[in-house]
Amino acid sequence: MTNKLYDTSLSLLTDLYQVTMAYGYWKSKTAEKEAVFNLYFRKNPFNGGFTIACGLANVIGYINHFGFSKKDLRYLRTLTGNDNKPLFEAAFLDYLADLKLTCSIEAIPEGTVVFPNEPLVRVRGPILQCQLLETPLLNLINFESLIATKAARLRLVAEKDILLEFGLRRAQGVDGGMTASRAAYIGGCDATSNVLAGKLHDIPVRGTHAHSWVMSFDDEQQAFDTYAQVLPNNVTLLVDTYDTLQGVRHAIETGRKLEQQGHKLAAIRLDSGDLAYLSIEARKLLDEAGFQRTSIVASNDLDETIITSLKQQGAKIDIWGVGTKLVTAFDQPALGGVYKLAALQNETSEETTDRRVTGHRATDRWSYKMKLSEQAIKISTPGIQQVRRFQDERGFLADMIYNTEEMNELGRPTTMIDPMDFTKRRRFDANQQYEDLLVPIFLDGKCVYSLPDIHAVRARVQTQLAGLHPGVKRFVNPHIYPVGLEKGLHELKTELILKLREGASQ
Amino acid sequence: MTNKLYDTSLSLLTDLYQVTMAYGYWKSKTAEKEAVFNLYFRKNPFNGGFTIACGLANVIGYINHFGFSKKDLRYLRTLTGNDNKPLFEAAFLDYLADLKLTCSIEAIPEGTVVFPNEPLVRVRGPILQCQLLETPLLNLINFESLIATKAARLRLVAEKDILLEFGLRRAQGVDGGMTASRAAYIGGCDATSNVLAGKLHDIPVRGTHAHSWVMSFDDEQQAFDTYAQVLPNNVTLLVDTYDTLQGVRHAIETGRKLEQQGHKLAAIRLDSGDLAYLSIEARKLLDEAGFQRTSIVASNDLDETIITSLKQQGAKIDIWGVGTKLVTAFDQPALGGVYKLAALQNETSEETTDRRVTGHRATDRWSYKMKLSEQAIKISTPGIQQVRRFQDERGFLADMIYNTEEMNELGRPTTMIDPMDFTKRRRFDANQQYEDLLVPIFLDGKCVYSLPDIHAVRARVQTQLAGLHPGVKRFVNPHIYPVGLEKGLHELKTELILKLREGASQ
Repeated sequence: MTNKLYDTSLSLLTDLYQVTMAYGYWKSKTAEKEAVFNLYFRKNPFNGGFTIACGLANVIGYINHFGFSKKDLRYLRTLTGNDNKPLFEAAFLDYLADLKLTCSIEAIPEGTVVFPNEPLVRVRGPILQCQLLETPLLNLINFESLIATKAARLRLVAEKDILLEFGLRRAQGVDGGMTASRAAYIGGCDATSNVLAGKLHDIPVRGTHAHSWVMSFDDEQQAFDTYAQVLPNNVTLLVDTYDTLQGVRHAIETGRKLEQQGHKLAAIRLDSGDLAYLSIEARKLLDEAGFQRTSIVASNDLDETIITSLKQQGAKIDIWGVGTKLVTAFDQPALGGVYKLAALQNETSEETTDRRVTGHRATDRWSYKMKLSEQAIKISTPGIQQVRRFQDERGFLADMIYNTEEMNELGRPTTMIDPMDFTKRRRFDANQQYEDLLVPIFLDGKCVYSLPDIHAVRARVQTQLAGLHPGVKRFVNPHIYPVGLEKGLHELKTELILKLREGASQ
Repeated sequence: MTNKLYDTSLSLLTDLYQVTMAYGYWKSKTAEKEAVFNLYFRKNPFNGGFTIACGLANVIGYINHFGFSKKDLRYLRTLTGNDNKPLFEAAFLDYLADLKLTCSIEAIPEGTVVFPNEPLVRVRGPILQCQLLETPLLNLINFESLIATKAARLRLVAEKDILLEFGLRRAQGVDGGMTASRAAYIGGCDATSNVLAGKLHDIPVRGTHAHSWVMSFDDEQQAFDTYAQVLPNNVTLLVDTYDTLQGVRHAIETGRKLEQQGHKLAAIRLDSGDLAYLSIEARKLLDEAGFQRTSIVASNDLDETIITSLKQQGAKIDIWGVGTKLVTAFDQPALGGVYKLAALQNETSEETTDRRVTGHRATDRWSYKMKLSEQAIKISTPGIQQVRRFQDERGFLADMIYNTEEMNELGRPTTMIDPMDFTKRRRFDANQQYEDLLVPIFLDGKCVYSLPDIHAVRARVQTQLAGLHPGVKRFVNPHIYPVGLEKGLHELKTELILKLREGASQ
């Protein structure tokens, strides 16, 4: 690393334009104006039907350590504009030096299944602070949610088999590996090969030997025998260094010696060739030799498609080692999360802060904000959003995004409108069971959330997935889980679009 | 981060099997046996014709800080096998506690164009140490080389235009962003939006404002005017929040006010819609208003294919902002680098270490090692390898991989054999100009390499690319740059394959 990254404050881990905008807010005396931003994505990754929320633990760590160091400010002081004069005046850097985050943040807990357009994180606070958090929040949430989702898909196809994450060597940098190992475990992997992730994140670690171990001996039998003598309680033998089925025979020979010493041959591993054919033939050899309980591990560029295909071919594989395709989310290596301004405090009437008092439309407190676009999918949704998940004993029914400032008709039926087709509506009775997904994480800059341990988060993924209709979990043309806007929010959005389209042409 | 990662030793940033193999070597008293490993890849990324070597600076940082901490060892002590007994005995952990790296490492300098099968890094030293370095070396070299190559491709299509890297928010974790920003700059980007990368890696930073700035005002004109007042020396206005061409008109209005104050409108930015059409129309509006010197920046999921297409369409874009597709290497997010054992010290005749004395075949000093495979591409090459690049005044002619222990016929002509077709041979005269690419980095664990600064590495990429025939730099079916094995190494490899194939069937 030239170990630089790890000795420094991470408050500059942001795009320069967040700092120039912060300067703009400060100079124009709007820095403290209360804003609400929503972090959400527009499309499930991998053409799938769901996404797993992940990354909140890192967000909390990031915010708890937020603060500009002297070095950070010294660096900002060196930045110049196109006239070679300083970009920022000294008083602004003094402001940053004293800056403490006072935002309130709500978020959907890690391990929850989530869908396009739902706010995973909602940040409310001085606009300058909200702006500075945009880039790090997106970086932290986008990647971990992507990998947790990939791992959840692998878990779905692996069913009850053991699933191991082996990706560190192909990960996108040190933290690309560390973060991927965490998210992969949460998403459904059973263990990782990454020892540092094991140590720091309390993830089980697994691994035995590589081809180089075999190559370092004069012959394979000697290599296997030596490994078994040295680590008799951790024997998985990699059999494909020279000739796979001959390797299986050597492993069986070692297995016999192990049994004489009261140990067992845990598994063999196949890392190349036709995994369907080789696993079936290896299984036969093992069974014939009495090693019915020795497992077969397979690796080599596996992903959910190849695992599905191998299972369909009757491959005799008990343990799947997944690396590159998991930790980089190879077929879609980025989740396109965005972070959009949705409301801004009105200057005029700050005293009328109680929405119960101000009536149905709280427009005297908030200016609702949205970004227009020619593409409907890119138009953002205004409001201080919350997600209400309706459910019954069979599982999740639908998610409704609503504006917390508007929907004060508690105890009344609600109507949800499909944002892609406003004629599609669903009505929920007041007694319909539901859960509001966003929970408080920070209140005025102070963390109020008790982070569950990684194993609880991992378990949550499975209970959450159990709440989904099987069609939503299908890989090919998945059923689209219904997510809509509460009627009032839909009307607010429509009104605002019309107003903005009119204004934009002026 | 929960800031954990950044407070810890990174020596456990490896796969568990490296540690279990290390234990195996230690237990079987072969830990100190001298080994040689080569790190190489098998295929250029992106179906391209070349790769840019990158990541060595981080490797040097990693190795300079190598060492197991007390916490690392305490963690390793907790690991158990399938009988729930400890995996490692205490004396091994004591050995690790005292371990200092004594390897000698040679590598191809960062910024060099490299090709499949060439060792980018060669590690020579006690096999236990070489083994522990496998995973971190692959992690660090694979990713940075991948991104530097992507950036070099973007530079080829951007030609003299300015190229900006905007990817942090979509990068694979914190370090996925930090490392990508470094490699992108080396590969040919002019600046990054990532402020921390600017600070830590001395990369120019760029950025002005986002949609949220515009949305935070009642109208776009007011947003632009305020930004220009606040940061008059850094005005690039994002014009597509509501209606792009209307946005250009607002930007022109702001530009007029800026000029009255002696400043200039540096650029406008397009971030959505039909970039060809909009840039042409925006250029017209700007030119008609007298803003011929105002640049047009474009962003929105750009990559080398889209930039090429936009240029062919006559888009009037001067500055390209590239994010997701660059920092994740979206179309191929991993380089498949591997690290293979190529030679192992012979126990019998350690005294005969001088290869000049031991004659043509140094097999009494080294056992040459390779991995077999059904697929020819997966068979590794044995030997203590060096890469000789032949060149003339027009550029690079061919790269020849040779075994430093064998090719002692200095001053004689050499013959290079195509590894995919042994009947294809090239002969080079003794007076042919060449450069040996691998240079000493560590000697017996001590760094002996003076790292060039990042700007020198970036410049090297361009001089290296200038040495390549244009056909090699073509994106579609590139010409394959000739890389072969020196005749003696080819014969050694053939001999070893035949011997191993025979042995494997026994």
